[in-house]
Amino acid sequence: MSDANQNGDSQKKSYHKKATGLALQTAEKHSRDHDLKLYGSCFCPFVQRVWISLELKQLPYQYIEVDPYKKPKSLLDVNPRGLVPALRHGDWGCYESTVLMEYVRLPAAALRGLKPMLTRFKLEDLQEGEPLLPPDAKTRAHSRLWSDHINRHIIPSFYRYLQEQDTEKQVTFAGELKDQIAKIASDADPNGPFFLGSSMSFVDVQMAPWVIRMEKVLKPYRGWPSAEKGSRWAKWVSAIEEHHAVKATTSDDGLYLDSYERYAENRPDTSQLAKAINSGRGLP
Amino acid sequence: MSDANQNGDSQKKSYHKKATGLALQTAEKHSRDHDLKLYGSCFCPFVQRVWISLELKQLPYQYIEVDPYKKPKSLLDVNPRGLVPALRHGDWGCYESTVLMEYVRLPAAALRGLKPMLTRFKLEDLQEGEPLLPPDAKTRAHSRLWSDHINRHIIPSFYRYLQEQDTEKQVTFAGELKDQIAKIASDADPNGPFFLGSSMSFVDVQMAPWVIRMEKVLKPYRGWPSAEKGSRWAKWVSAIEEHHAVKATTSDDGLYLDSYERYAENRPDTSQLAKAINSGRGLP
Repeated sequence: MSDANQNGDSQKKSYHKKATGLALQTAEKHSRDHDLKLYGSCFCPFVQRVWISLELKQLPYQYIEVDPYKKPKSLLDVNPRGLVPALRHGDWGCYESTVLMEYVRLPAAALRGLKPMLTRFKLEDLQEGEPLLPPDAKTRAHSRLWSDHINRHIIPSFYRYLQEQDTEKQVTFAGELKDQIAKIASDADPNGPFFLGSSMSFVDVQMAPWVIRMEKVLKPYRGWPSAEKGSRWAKWVSAIEEHHAVKATTSDDGLYLDSYERYAENRPDTSQLAKAINSGRGLP
Repeated sequence: MSDANQNGDSQKKSYHKKATGLALQTAEKHSRDHDLKLYGSCFCPFVQRVWISLELKQLPYQYIEVDPYKKPKSLLDVNPRGLVPALRHGDWGCYESTVLMEYVRLPAAALRGLKPMLTRFKLEDLQEGEPLLPPDAKTRAHSRLWSDHINRHIIPSFYRYLQEQDTEKQVTFAGELKDQIAKIASDADPNGPFFLGSSMSFVDVQMAPWVIRMEKVLKPYRGWPSAEKGSRWAKWVSAIEEHHAVKATTSDDGLYLDSYERYAENRPDTSQLAKAINSGRGLP
């Protein structure tokens, strides 16, 4: 059966509606009802940011797979615009991946619902697990600065490049993406392997889903080259790809190849994001 | 003498290089050398966000006026792209107004350089003055969600409307701006007058410079109407306009009228922001 995403041609690939591989195992492990619910779609990189964060903090949560073209009412209650990722926590809900990552970076105990036990200013005392943002105010500002760079420069470059049909312009956009990556890589901790050093933190999680999709989407569809051996960027890419929280939220290659065909062919009605890129607006 | 901003016509107005009115008094009060330095340009709304934050926290700081077309080396040391606002704090520096506001929202004591006295997780204990972001994690997420709405929807709408030369399109863009304002106003605390209630916080400060410029720029150049009397939006606008930290960082009307003529006429080379809006890219 053909749907809008196939542009009337049932031979075309459409997005997947169920994770595969390790991501499916993780989704199944988190299928039981829980107070903290992540509404996500298996192919969506913005969802993967929040999913990685939850896995990194080893928080208990429920993963709810959403077909973005058939939004359940429970998602619309949290986000009237119906976009994933969205988090529901008890009777409260929120959306936007960066905002949700700031929320999830909070002390695990607070998120587990122990908040009434805490006095107003002692939240940070209960920090558990790997903190997503470091405690030092200056390093936090540094992380937020580069998170902003990813959101405003790397991600739009990624989609402009992937959606462009003209091969000459593809070369230009590939160059732009490389430049934006070079900027962030040049400000990363020189030893790494992660952005701030030996462990994964906010900026790495913000980048991770697109690092995965450079290999699994940009490479097959646009001939995006692997990172140059021995470079800081190559070291970073490997560390991200091999991290347990990234692996646990990544499906098999075919899922990405199928789900992104509509972007690579720049089909109409692919997504609000694709439309925004085509019309020269910021991300929706 | 004509400059690039006058498009070769010395009768045209250009941006001001020195604050006037109350903002000038504040700049003069903060002209002495200090460890915490704000690099700003008097007409720039992104600068005003950080300036309001510093005034709100009543922090000691030095204000350094920067001509954005003649960037001093000390600014380029902090921000290689040379954009204001930029903050220098001792030998550390950072930029991007939202990132800087997250930094300034920190405990005043930490910013005053008392940090070595503090243990790693006790920073929040020393919170002083009005906190920019509330202590409750869910209200913080709510604030960041609407801060994101301002950055990605309200601000681009503001400039698209101001730079548009075609009157029919101006009507469309005015409508878009009104819709984006209606969205945020509908999610503000019903009593207000500020976004979260009785005092000014993060979202109000993020909005304030554009609220000021709706009255001082959009009204004279585009006939932007005053907020409807008795509406939630009108109450919010008044509270922002009358706040001491907003007044203390606002110049006389003529400064804005002159400085924004180049935007209203959409002259070439007005600014990186104006160029991004014209080319359909996100904010620079």
